[in-house]
Amino acid sequence: MTETNFATRLAAVMQAHDSLVCVGLDPEPAKFPSHLQHAPRAIFEFNRAIVDATADLVCAYKPQIAHYAALGAEAQLADTIAYIRDRAPQVPVILDSKRGDIGSTAAKYAEEAFGRYGADAVTINPYLGFDAAEPFLEYADKGIVVLCRTSNAGAREFQDLEVGGKKLYQIVAEHVAQHWNARGNCLLVVGATYPAELADIRARTGEMTFLVPGVGAQGGDVELAVRSGMTKAGSGLVINSSRGILYAGSGADFAVAARRATLELRTAINAARR
Amino acid sequence: MTETNFATRLAAVMQAHDSLVCVGLDPEPAKFPSHLQHAPRAIFEFNRAIVDATADLVCAYKPQIAHYAALGAEAQLADTIAYIRDRAPQVPVILDSKRGDIGSTAAKYAEEAFGRYGADAVTINPYLGFDAAEPFLEYADKGIVVLCRTSNAGAREFQDLEVGGKKLYQIVAEHVAQHWNARGNCLLVVGATYPAELADIRARTGEMTFLVPGVGAQGGDVELAVRSGMTKAGSGLVINSSRGILYAGSGADFAVAARRATLELRTAINAARR
Repeated sequence: MTETNFATRLAAVMQAHDSLVCVGLDPEPAKFPSHLQHAPRAIFEFNRAIVDATADLVCAYKPQIAHYAALGAEAQLADTIAYIRDRAPQVPVILDSKRGDIGSTAAKYAEEAFGRYGADAVTINPYLGFDAAEPFLEYADKGIVVLCRTSNAGAREFQDLEVGGKKLYQIVAEHVAQHWNARGNCLLVVGATYPAELADIRARTGEMTFLVPGVGAQGGDVELAVRSGMTKAGSGLVINSSRGILYAGSGADFAVAARRATLELRTAINAARR
Repeated sequence: MTETNFATRLAAVMQAHDSLVCVGLDPEPAKFPSHLQHAPRAIFEFNRAIVDATADLVCAYKPQIAHYAALGAEAQLADTIAYIRDRAPQVPVILDSKRGDIGSTAAKYAEEAFGRYGADAVTINPYLGFDAAEPFLEYADKGIVVLCRTSNAGAREFQDLEVGGKKLYQIVAEHVAQHWNARGNCLLVVGATYPAELADIRARTGEMTFLVPGVGAQGGDVELAVRSGMTKAGSGLVINSSRGILYAGSGADFAVAARRATLELRTAINAARR
């Protein structure tokens, strides 16, 4: 997936699959069905079943790296991404690692995401500023997804601080839209749990794409999030669900349940955007 | 190293080694001496030589995880930390990973740092707020090192934004000192490249310990940083040097050169604090 830039590839699969759904691949072996609990490479086998069951219904997969790192399962993460490449080459992979460090170190994190794992996009934290983001942004064909307004309850503590009549998250959104996005490869993270902020950031950033966590287990309202955040064309959102899809069922038919949950989410999103 | 809390252990080794020096274990194989360039487990062998050469001179080691992750060298990181435990059990290990995510995911990152790697402390990013830090803070005997004022040139972009008469980094410092630090296990990252900010944050946070990157390759002035940031008792700083020590020499005697550079840094710091 290196022929075209990330935005073009994402738009193509959104259209082909008629979907803004992103499945978050956040494996928690304690929640796996019993036949996988003690299987070798259980994480990869679980992910493979989820991908097989949902690949035609999604616009992206988003593995959250802490779920692998806590378990020393880097090889299974790499194998999962390689499997998606093989099974669903049109579906981009967003490595959710929220990295952020000074430039020379950020270059190593970019190498981790794009070199080692071959991800199509990566999430990063803006706190260190542009020079710390630049080693990621230099990958012009990749997607760089900058945290703006996160989905957690405590997001307000710093993100809502008022700076000269604007809130910090609004300033982050504007800096990214107006400066960081010179190569057209930036996206923003905006939580579904904050629909008013979704609308506000949409108004400030035009047609930028948002990665939207927070539906499902975190309680964000799908219809409200879509209506608040979508572009005029009814798109511009990558709406992630992890636990709500992965653990929709707990038995041997978990992948069937995951497909059903993915379909339901796609339907709910599409009803709201039209 | 779980009998006492992190602050107590850190203070003990600072006194025993008469040192505020932290060696950053940021391996870059291209900079290794030629006899290690193609050795199996070159990263571990390099780190082992550095630890052997410096263990009596430092108050902490700080492996920066991106340098391992970019190379798929998690096993060599784990082995390095285990080696420090064995060779220098009194010297704490700060895992520099600058993690930050919503609570349920932050718990996985805490498991990575403290469970998988057995680190004594970890660096985290404050942008998501207290609830995202809490899964780390719950480890009362560990050190939680919160980014406050980073050492890079671009730190000003967001960290210096004015919020009701204070700058964002000042608010982060105060929130951490007054609220996040209820268990007494918080530290702050404040770059040596910003001595005025070091003094300002010292004035706002009393006796909190700062992890201070930015001397050496990044250009921070040691004497100025120490005088600006130290506590009244002439301590409270963990001053990190990575490249300036690891790559002080490039030949077979690199560890000798690293010891000399560590001694020089310790001497310069101690001259400034007395």
